Amino acid sequence: MFAQIKRILVGRPIATEHQHQERLNKVTALAVFSSDALSSVSYATEAILTILVLGGSVALGLSLPIAVAIAMLLLIVGFSYRQTIHAYPQGGGSYIVTRDNLGDLPGLIAASALLIDYVLTVAVSISAGVAAITSLATNWGFPGVRDYAVEIALLCILVVTIANLRGAKESGLIFSVPTYAFIASILSIIVVGVSQDLLFGVEPVRHSIDPDIPPVGETLSLWLILRAFAAGCTALTGIEAISDGVQAFKAPEARNASITLTWMIGLLVTMFLGITWLADAHRAVPNEFTHETIVSQIARTIFGIGPVYVFIQIATALILVLAANTAFADFPRLASFLARDRFLPRQFASRGDRLVFSNGILVLGLFSALLVIIFQANEIAMLPLYAVGVFTSFTLSQSGMVRRHLRLRQPGWTRSAIINGFGATLTSIVLVILMITKFVHGAWMVILTIPVLVMMFRGINLHYQRVAEQLSLSGAVVPPELRRHTAIVLISGIHRGVLPALQYARSIAPDNVTAVYVDLDPEATEKLRKRWQDWGCGIPLVVLESPFRSLINPIVRYIEEVETRYGDDVITVILPEFVPARWWEHLLHNQTGILIKTALRLRGTVVTSVPYRLR
Amino acid sequence: MFAQIKRILVGRPIATEHQHQERLNKVTALAVFSSDALSSVSYATEAILTILVLGGSVALGLSLPIAVAIAMLLLIVGFSYRQTIHAYPQGGGSYIVTRDNLGDLPGLIAASALLIDYVLTVAVSISAGVAAITSLATNWGFPGVRDYAVEIALLCILVVTIANLRGAKESGLIFSVPTYAFIASILSIIVVGVSQDLLFGVEPVRHSIDPDIPPVGETLSLWLILRAFAAGCTALTGIEAISDGVQAFKAPEARNASITLTWMIGLLVTMFLGITWLADAHRAVPNEFTHETIVSQIARTIFGIGPVYVFIQIATALILVLAANTAFADFPRLASFLARDRFLPRQFASRGDRLVFSNGILVLGLFSALLVIIFQANEIAMLPLYAVGVFTSFTLSQSGMVRRHLRLRQPGWTRSAIINGFGATLTSIVLVILMITKFVHGAWMVILTIPVLVMMFRGINLHYQRVAEQLSLSGAVVPPELRRHTAIVLISGIHRGVLPALQYARSIAPDNVTAVYVDLDPEATEKLRKRWQDWGCGIPLVVLESPFRSLINPIVRYIEEVETRYGDDVITVILPEFVPARWWEHLLHNQTGILIKTALRLRGTVVTSVPYRLR
Repeated sequence: MFAQIKRILVGRPIATEHQHQERLNKVTALAVFSSDALSSVSYATEAILTILVLGGSVALGLSLPIAVAIAMLLLIVGFSYRQTIHAYPQGGGSYIVTRDNLGDLPGLIAASALLIDYVLTVAVSISAGVAAITSLATNWGFPGVRDYAVEIALLCILVVTIANLRGAKESGLIFSVPTYAFIASILSIIVVGVSQDLLFGVEPVRHSIDPDIPPVGETLSLWLILRAFAAGCTALTGIEAISDGVQAFKAPEARNASITLTWMIGLLVTMFLGITWLADAHRAVPNEFTHETIVSQIARTIFGIGPVYVFIQIATALILVLAANTAFADFPRLASFLARDRFLPRQFASRGDRLVFSNGILVLGLFSALLVIIFQANEIAMLPLYAVGVFTSFTLSQSGMVRRHLRLRQPGWTRSAIINGFGATLTSIVLVILMITKFVHGAWMVILTIPVLVMMFRGINLHYQRVAEQLSLSGAVVPPELRRHTAIVLISGIHRGVLPALQYARSIAPDNVTAVYVDLDPEATEKLRKRWQDWGCGIPLVVLESPFRSLINPIVRYIEEVETRYGDDVITVILPEFVPARWWEHLLHNQTGILIKTALRLRGTVVTSVPYRLR
Repeated sequence: MFAQIKRILVGRPIATEHQHQERLNKVTALAVFSSDALSSVSYATEAILTILVLGGSVALGLSLPIAVAIAMLLLIVGFSYRQTIHAYPQGGGSYIVTRDNLGDLPGLIAASALLIDYVLTVAVSISAGVAAITSLATNWGFPGVRDYAVEIALLCILVVTIANLRGAKESGLIFSVPTYAFIASILSIIVVGVSQDLLFGVEPVRHSIDPDIPPVGETLSLWLILRAFAAGCTALTGIEAISDGVQAFKAPEARNASITLTWMIGLLVTMFLGITWLADAHRAVPNEFTHETIVSQIARTIFGIGPVYVFIQIATALILVLAANTAFADFPRLASFLARDRFLPRQFASRGDRLVFSNGILVLGLFSALLVIIFQANEIAMLPLYAVGVFTSFTLSQSGMVRRHLRLRQPGWTRSAIINGFGATLTSIVLVILMITKFVHGAWMVILTIPVLVMMFRGINLHYQRVAEQLSLSGAVVPPELRRHTAIVLISGIHRGVLPALQYARSIAPDNVTAVYVDLDPEATEKLRKRWQDWGCGIPLVVLESPFRSLINPIVRYIEEVETRYGDDVITVILPEFVPARWWEHLLHNQTGILIKTALRLRGTVVTSVPYRLR
């Protein structure tokens, strides 16, 4: 039954030989790799304003300077990643670059930071996508849709999880349409909005319920500015995607990837600055009553609630779903690398029926759903957790690159080392700012989780090492021929299902079989003794006492006794088991067989099941 | 680890020989068996008023006449049960009496009705007990406690469940103190309250927030009166308890039980009528704002918020917890009867470590907790579901008694048949009223669940019958000597853990062993082939293709092939398994071994595990 449900949801298995890699041209690659980065335009400005509004309406004017600072950071980090692309044309994810150059521990820290960030990418992107849709619904006169934000978000995660378990072939078209629709949307808002502003001046956004802006809020401290800057750094999430996937480009891979990265950074900076400019000009502010997004506020003010506005909102929601989908490719792949290196259970390294890393996909779906529930699908509330992971992995991988340049000293290494070194320094400073300003607002969770994950990775690795040592054949000797068999048949009564097991036992240990029965009810025991004379096949019956009605303890004690008596023999415990024909019928029979088998397996006893099938 | 937690919660196992039965005198027996029946005084009057208040203040005056009608019904049903006690001195629960006299189907209907009612007893009693405590808290100035009603109720269910799993010896004292405290409380309220009323007249109850009584509500229809009557019938729940437990009385059992029943009915009628009288006199009404119970309203109006009031509230809460506890004895016992008769999985018939029917206790705890969550610990909202089950079992067991009298024709049978026949007719009429008036308010759930349970019982019974037929030894022949063994060793690689399995296979099938490996990765397969030459013990290695990366399908196909080739042989599949030393380490290894074993067991193949223990 489970198998059928799985088939319907996930589809038929796919043969291994169909594993293949489609090479992408630059236009398609931009769509495939940049959805995560570009989609942050839909919430980064809002993140800055959410903090600045605490300083009252005066503070809001600082949004543009802060955005410019973040845009500079973006350019520097982007430039730094171009170095990585050229150095690791086979794909240089932070885990690989860091572990390669700085060693295991930094590599694992980068991996933990990334895994956490992928979970957050799904939760944040899906929540932001839902916010785009609920903003649209509110402006159409259905503000009640917002009450179902969590349910809608969970449904989206479910759909994306199932789609990824099916491993639908990622056609370039599916990515290109929403990504370019989003780029076109945002650029048209900016072109129309900025021209209006420069030519005629603009009106402020009107709200159905006015947001509550303190006329004079907290003093406009450096602390508030740093917090707003830190909040806006979420604009940098996802820009490492291209350097992870250089191999997916058409030849020359590195060159094409590098050009695509430059385009992506250029678009991202333009869109982020443009939206922040317009938010400032239209005095858009986060509205805690309607939960309308900043982009929605600007778009409807410029274009009115018509088809263009609808198009923009839908394009925004779609690119955000794509961004979440990207994490569903990245998380399982990173988990499979970790499993291959024996830092995660090996179940993460094996491809499922449909050639995808099913376990990684399921774990990601589960944890992101959990985050959505905890944070009630409020992406702004999740942002303080976000970005810490990204900047940790930026800093580590850039530092790794510096180390690499110093080690290899390839032509032009000084220039490259300076670029990466500058990037690493800058991102490490920002990381410290992020950790300090966001700590109490949620970043502490990430900062605590990273060492826990690292310890887990090392514990797992240690276990696998110890197992490998113990199972190694070096120095092993072929064990001696087995002397003689002793068989113990465990019975819970005498019926047709027992007879084949008794015969089996006699055939492997003709001279040394006993049947063992645990006495739980004197009456039943007496009945068994009588019938044993007819049906026991001449095998001696041993009845064990069990004052506490336990089955396992008396059996284990008896086996220990036999082991002492026949030290050289191999002892085989034989279990007759009747097998119901239908799955639910298994529930109607005591599952003690399973418990006994588990207990015996743990103590290293050979156990043979002799099944008897029922109709 | 699980075992340790269980020990702490449930305690050490108890030996079978300690099973015993303490005989009760009448005073203790009244306390042990009547908590369920008497505790209904705390909500039955409120149930009537909750309905009548819909008819406005005029309708409230009808509470006393309705209570008198219910009291008459109580006397008749009680008198009818005296017959059962004399006819079934070994204990005549409705399931036994009905099945004995009317056959399987009516017996199963009675059993379903009772099981549902036991679940409701726990949910209703615990919720009512919590209401007594929150009323007390509100009057002390902590109205916020009411917001945690669900949590408190769930905690109570958890505690009662664990206490019953421990199987604490039910000392008479534990039952006597709260029961007699409750009887004393209610009787003192009645004596003081009624004398005040008769001598001086009384004041109405004062509320911190006045309840919302419609001045003229629904028209005072016959329908409303019937609904109020039906609601009050919850006063009859639990009165069958003494007839179930006749064997617990000191000799002469039937006579003592009969006297105790009379006392219980007398007390119940007095207390129920007295509280209803006082509710009427003090114009107490259910208050949807404060959720204060009627008993609490009356008690504080008469005694003020002092020690007497506190004593009354605590005694009420305690007897309600005891009432729930009663269901924890009754439900598992009835489930064990059903399991013994093969209508429920046999797991319900076996006593656990602590000599109690653990599975029944757990199932009851789970379902009652579910009800508390669904109904938000509001006992008045649950009452429409209650009582339908009780009256179904009343009607069936009384009818069964009539049938018995007609069949046995013992001395005095006509008189007994008339009493039981009158009881059966009356309760069947009330049952119809209950089903009609409460249908839309929740009774439909019970009415739908009963046939579902009955069908489940019959399905289970059919399964056990079919298994018994197939396993029966009548006509069985001892299977022929086994010809020859064929062994197949399934390997996932070659390491120290595999060697003992290869040796074992050679020892049982010296001339016919193959090792089988499923090729999932050509590189690994090549490596294995090379090492096999050194370590394969001369056993031929078969490599199976698996285009879809499935392990089980190629293995099953190969076994089918071998079965066709060596038709007469016994085929044994041997699985080398390494066993990690710590429980969490099991999670780090593919659990494919378990899947393979299950698949082979279902198809009837003999499987031998040869474990290799790791440190």
